[in-house]
Amino acid sequence: MSKILGSYEEALQVAKTLAAGFAKTAAARDKSGGTPAKELDLIKSSGLLNFFIAKEHGGTGGNWKQLIAIFTEFARVDSSLAHLFAFHNYQLATVRLYGAKEQWTKLHRDTAANGWFWANALNQLKRDVIATKQSDGSYRWNGVKTFATGSKSADYITITGSENSEEGKTLAAAIPTKREGVEIEGDWDNIGQRQTDSGRLFFYNVRVEASEILSDPGPLSTPFSSFRPLIGQLFFGNLFLSVAEGAFAAAINYVRGKETRPWLSSIASSAQKDPLLLRRLGEALVDLESARALVDRVNDLIDPVWAKAEALSEQERGEFAIAVAKSRAAATKTALAVTSGIFDALGSRATTRELGFDRFWRNARTQTLHDPIDYKLVAIGDHALNGDYPAPSFYS
Amino acid sequence: MSKILGSYEEALQVAKTLAAGFAKTAAARDKSGGTPAKELDLIKSSGLLNFFIAKEHGGTGGNWKQLIAIFTEFARVDSSLAHLFAFHNYQLATVRLYGAKEQWTKLHRDTAANGWFWANALNQLKRDVIATKQSDGSYRWNGVKTFATGSKSADYITITGSENSEEGKTLAAAIPTKREGVEIEGDWDNIGQRQTDSGRLFFYNVRVEASEILSDPGPLSTPFSSFRPLIGQLFFGNLFLSVAEGAFAAAINYVRGKETRPWLSSIASSAQKDPLLLRRLGEALVDLESARALVDRVNDLIDPVWAKAEALSEQERGEFAIAVAKSRAAATKTALAVTSGIFDALGSRATTRELGFDRFWRNARTQTLHDPIDYKLVAIGDHALNGDYPAPSFYS
Amino acid sequence: MSKILGSYEEALQVAKTLAAGFAKTAAARDKSGGTPAKELDLIKSSGLLNFFIAKEHGGTGGNWKQLIAIFTEFARVDSSLAHLFAFHNYQLATVRLYGAKEQWTKLHRDTAANGWFWANALNQLKRDVIATKQSDGSYRWNGVKTFATGSKSADYITITGSENSEEGKTLAAAIPTKREGVEIEGDWDNIGQRQTDSGRLFFYNVRVEASEILSDPGPLSTPFSSFRPLIGQLFFGNLFLSVAEGAFAAAINYVRGKETRPWLSSIASSAQKDPLLLRRLGEALVDLESARALVDRVNDLIDPVWAKAEALSEQERGEFAIAVAKSRAAATKTALAVTSGIFDALGSRATTRELGFDRFWRNARTQTLHDPIDYKLVAIGDHALNGDYPAPSFYS
Amino acid sequence: MSKILGSYEEALQVAKTLAAGFAKTAAARDKSGGTPAKELDLIKSSGLLNFFIAKEHGGTGGNWKQLIAIFTEFARVDSSLAHLFAFHNYQLATVRLYGAKEQWTKLHRDTAANGWFWANALNQLKRDVIATKQSDGSYRWNGVKTFATGSKSADYITITGSENSEEGKTLAAAIPTKREGVEIEGDWDNIGQRQTDSGRLFFYNVRVEASEILSDPGPLSTPFSSFRPLIGQLFFGNLFLSVAEGAFAAAINYVRGKETRPWLSSIASSAQKDPLLLRRLGEALVDLESARALVDRVNDLIDPVWAKAEALSEQERGEFAIAVAKSRAAATKTALAVTSGIFDALGSRATTRELGFDRFWRNARTQTLHDPIDYKLVAIGDHALNGDYPAPSFYS
Repeated sequence: MSKILGSYEEALQVAKTLAAGFAKTAAARDKSGGTPAKELDLIKSSGLLNFFIAKEHGGTGGNWKQLIAIFTEFARVDSSLAHLFAFHNYQLATVRLYGAKEQWTKLHRDTAANGWFWANALNQLKRDVIATKQSDGSYRWNGVKTFATGSKSADYITITGSENSEEGKTLAAAIPTKREGVEIEGDWDNIGQRQTDSGRLFFYNVRVEASEILSDPGPLSTPFSSFRPLIGQLFFGNLFLSVAEGAFAAAINYVRGKETRPWLSSIASSAQKDPLLLRRLGEALVDLESARALVDRVNDLIDPVWAKAEALSEQERGEFAIAVAKSRAAATKTALAVTSGIFDALGSRATTRELGFDRFWRNARTQTLHDPIDYKLVAIGDHALNGDYPAPSFYS
Repeated sequence: MSKILGSYEEALQVAKTLAAGFAKTAAARDKSGGTPAKELDLIKSSGLLNFFIAKEHGGTGGNWKQLIAIFTEFARVDSSLAHLFAFHNYQLATVRLYGAKEQWTKLHRDTAANGWFWANALNQLKRDVIATKQSDGSYRWNGVKTFATGSKSADYITITGSENSEEGKTLAAAIPTKREGVEIEGDWDNIGQRQTDSGRLFFYNVRVEASEILSDPGPLSTPFSSFRPLIGQLFFGNLFLSVAEGAFAAAINYVRGKETRPWLSSIASSAQKDPLLLRRLGEALVDLESARALVDRVNDLIDPVWAKAEALSEQERGEFAIAVAKSRAAATKTALAVTSGIFDALGSRATTRELGFDRFWRNARTQTLHDPIDYKLVAIGDHALNGDYPAPSFYS
Repeated sequence: MSKILGSYEEALQVAKTLAAGFAKTAAARDKSGGTPAKELDLIKSSGLLNFFIAKEHGGTGGNWKQLIAIFTEFARVDSSLAHLFAFHNYQLATVRLYGAKEQWTKLHRDTAANGWFWANALNQLKRDVIATKQSDGSYRWNGVKTFATGSKSADYITITGSENSEEGKTLAAAIPTKREGVEIEGDWDNIGQRQTDSGRLFFYNVRVEASEILSDPGPLSTPFSSFRPLIGQLFFGNLFLSVAEGAFAAAINYVRGKETRPWLSSIASSAQKDPLLLRRLGEALVDLESARALVDRVNDLIDPVWAKAEALSEQERGEFAIAVAKSRAAATKTALAVTSGIFDALGSRATTRELGFDRFWRNARTQTLHDPIDYKLVAIGDHALNGDYPAPSFYS
Repeated sequence: MSKILGSYEEALQVAKTLAAGFAKTAAARDKSGGTPAKELDLIKSSGLLNFFIAKEHGGTGGNWKQLIAIFTEFARVDSSLAHLFAFHNYQLATVRLYGAKEQWTKLHRDTAANGWFWANALNQLKRDVIATKQSDGSYRWNGVKTFATGSKSADYITITGSENSEEGKTLAAAIPTKREGVEIEGDWDNIGQRQTDSGRLFFYNVRVEASEILSDPGPLSTPFSSFRPLIGQLFFGNLFLSVAEGAFAAAINYVRGKETRPWLSSIASSAQKDPLLLRRLGEALVDLESARALVDRVNDLIDPVWAKAEALSEQERGEFAIAVAKSRAAATKTALAVTSGIFDALGSRATTRELGFDRFWRNARTQTLHDPIDYKLVAIGDHALNGDYPAPSFYS
């Protein structure tokens, strides 16, 4: 039986304590890459993995806004861990959205009971995995998924495959990562988000039971069953922005400790009172707080929309999708500007790898590329001008 | 007896109705400049001038946040009128902040009773006006004020002068604009905010009674008595941002009505579906909504801080000053970008003077120069890095 | 017989002298709008209208690069006059490009002999003018042209019309503006470029002789006959950039004369030594000089390409088109940023209409909208990535 | 006897061939960091180290502009190697500027004869190294230099120390790196420019002969003897910009090879024809070419200014210093924008470490911090407004 935290306040405190510890090793783990096994174990044993699971299913019963506040604690110091923790909950939401009630409630209950950690192998930009129906109703999954976040460390995983037919309908399922034929490559070695384990996952004739297929309602069949990417996109905006906030905080801390002699041609009384430095910090902070204010507005929206569940209308989904797109766009612009710009405040001595200040930019740069930001901006403009909503997909 | 509106809801509705009317003539009045006499009469007779005056003094008893929401209605279509209306209330606040209780309550009561409209001749960057004490305790005011907003149309005015001594202490007072020796030049003919009457005001040996001097506590003597510029700065941020929102709304409206043929080399099905146009609109809207979210956060802060009154501490004032500076900085950046940028969406045919789309930029550009934005950014950075607050002044 | 200047050096000196005079009245004429009749007369009598006409046809025999240097003198102080002067030469180029040798050489000779000033009514975005063939081979022109630059003051004009057929082939011609049925509305009243006379021009059954039709080779029939818009686009880039350079020079001049007291919270010894101001000026100047360096590179290219004349290949035209697009894109970005940004250096007192510093932005903003800058950027990217050239048109 | 290349053309060809080889291993060597020993050996044996040495001293006799063109070849593919090669020449210039004629000519001759590679331990922001005069006229050097570029691999090195006196006058010298007591830490492990060996260098009672002191004229004593940082700053601008050009070229190459399917919501026929992608590429290229045009203008200026030698006036130095500052500022802005921005064109699959596209940003970000760009902008603005030149120092 895994640990269950009693309240949001308790969970937030647990997250803060964990984050303080993660902060100390974040720069070093960024260098090593690989799986943050020790840190994931700490998260597992903390009870946070059950935070979003309803009380009746054995969890804390937290909501999205609270969950976001929790992973923000991680994201400001270590965005890989934040990503992994956020994506665990993303998969819990996925089975809720795609599966029949008895499916997802059982999966949630089992997660709470067994302390499962979930990962994602669901992204579906092309027919890279084929699901072939067997005579007994089960499927055989063959192919490869890229960007299967968190898979190396996970107990359970959501997957998709294209039905072996001309139409190639997308099937979703949830299976244990230990299932025979599932091979997790562990080949994620990217410039940022280096401990997200987002490498390739191979399916070698993997048997997926009919009961494991999430087809009632399945993906993208109703406004609510196409809600998934909106959660993901909202997570992303929060993650990028938190990375930038973490970078800014780290920069402030570093500059405070710098020698006080101002630059040769500065007229300031100390480096810390240089008006050109202060202007840069001021500008960065205004950008950060503007984006934060917008992102928080959208964080306030998700729980009421989610609560509508199957009653969610196309229009309600559309309005929320636009709000989320705005939050992600604001966060993207600010995250890239701030994580690169802090160096002008830090100065040349702060470029040592030991300090690792570049990880903020590398993390933001990597994660902001999930899907093209230009198309988010187009969708926002299309709504503003033409009143249109983005077509539901795995990315919008 | 002037009209008193019963509630915020009523006042907001009145403002919306007025704004709809002002919108129709805003472009034409921008061309003509001068005093918007007819529109000010409509505001006077609407009862809105009493909105912020407490119920016990004969007004509606509205608060700052509500007042801002009201002038935002004006600012989106006509930022000169919004400015004049905002500044009326700014002077009501000024007498509250600088004057003794019996002084300001009388002035508020008389304003409500007589429907007075207030103007501002208080800005004090240098010793441009000298106040010489007479043997009977009264003063004689001599000199010239620039940027005396709204003076041409006003009934009452707040003024400052430097005492005729080496120290040159700043004296503030409130007098009727009809007072002998007050000459309002009406020479405001600037590129933006063209109907704010912000010209020069001359004092030719103007008698100011001892009872009209606001010296208990007087300006800048306590944290609360130095609260005035924070109101002004918050107004400015709201005004700039509303100008930009008005520009964006006007642009959307115009582009919707444009011919649908896309540009020669566009692959879009219509001009309104051109991805490059939509991307620009999306980007502008994200910037606008980010700034709006931040400005609204600060709008939420002012009433509780104001309510502290004489109990306001230096630190509380300082924290609020920084929050206000952030709102103004966010609004400045966005207002300038959006009011110039909309033209790329509008296209060349929208450059006719009849449409007058340039007034948004001219208004934003003029008003954002009130005091240098770089020094707001420096103050924000100084607080973030060193924990310092801006020194209270007439500008911070 | 009109005046002929003997050399480029002489012409440049004449232009500088004229420009110094135009500068004094530019702000006032911006306010009045209308036709700069007196200034055009000065240009006419100066001999500059013949500068580009070959010596053998009675002109000075200047080249494009020199001509651009000449109108740059005007553009820095009065971009309307620069536009009119540039467009006179643009039409001389047009008859060279579209007409048979005997046609254009006669038109050039007659221009030099009579001191004609040329205007433009050639822009062709849709079938707004219909040319119907008569039994005697002449045509009757009916319809309306918008944006017919300079028409009010011109002696001769280039025009286009769509043949009255299903195909609607574009016909170009050159006719006197006094031709019966040509009515110039003089209705240009726009936010910028206010003295370019770029209003509507109506054709009421205007007779155009067969000999006036420029159909050998006619527009867009060969690489060289589609060279026209490249001249126009290069002119535009030079004009925008010169406007911004003029704005910067005016700002520097103004700031030098400002009072020396620095801003309240500045630590500088004088306003003119404030590091935040200097940083802004430095940034603007670097942008200006970067764009200038690029624009000048393209100014160096045009004469050799033009000299290829009928031998110009598609590829050579394409390469030059991309170079021109780059120059225009650089100039657009910088012109908009600098003409708005100078105000932060100028301060609030510089917003009077008398100073008229906003005209730089209004001129740049109006002129940069000639055709969408986004599609120039797309063309540049398309060439960089795919090696493709923009399809020749009246805009690219 | 080391190899001497016969001409600039030959040297450029040699550099191109070497660069093509370096390109293949640049991403891998960026990961490993450390000394690029094999590549430096190739440069040494290529003869390029003698390129700038005059013919009469046994070198090729190239000039600065040519030398810059040569290291640009390296910088586009490997900015560490470019840095090392540039800095070798920077030290050859240093001994020319600071030393007596017999000193520097001998050092140049010996360099050509022995194929020496030079490194830099001259940067002097504070009194970190003390030079104590001995009774025999020699000095003992004690202390530590940070950022001693290239030292690990060098044969000869320029150094500075503060005289052991109250005044602490700066002494410069040139010594072999093998000199007893010189310890090169090899501890450079930074986020960018990872193979520049720019770590710490310790002096443990290092004997420096009187004849090795470069005190005739010594640093900063005349306009010409303070020319050194202008070379360095011009090198930096060229390096940053070349890094960005290299990044853009790599991006174009990668995007060409991507799958052609456009993004889900794109209306383009292929990914490579997506207008939003093309617009981004176009904008980046315009920025790059603008900066390039400006940098090349300054590259054209250096040789004539250098040729003035001891006759260089303060004003000539000042004008050149401002030109160099502009080139560096333009290059800085563009380099940071382009090296981060290319990722939006590359997409998420390009974030693998194997591709190593982040090295461009890391290199640009590290190198652009050499000294604060804001103070370059201030100097530029100060010159534009006040006509002042930056005070000669080791940084300006």
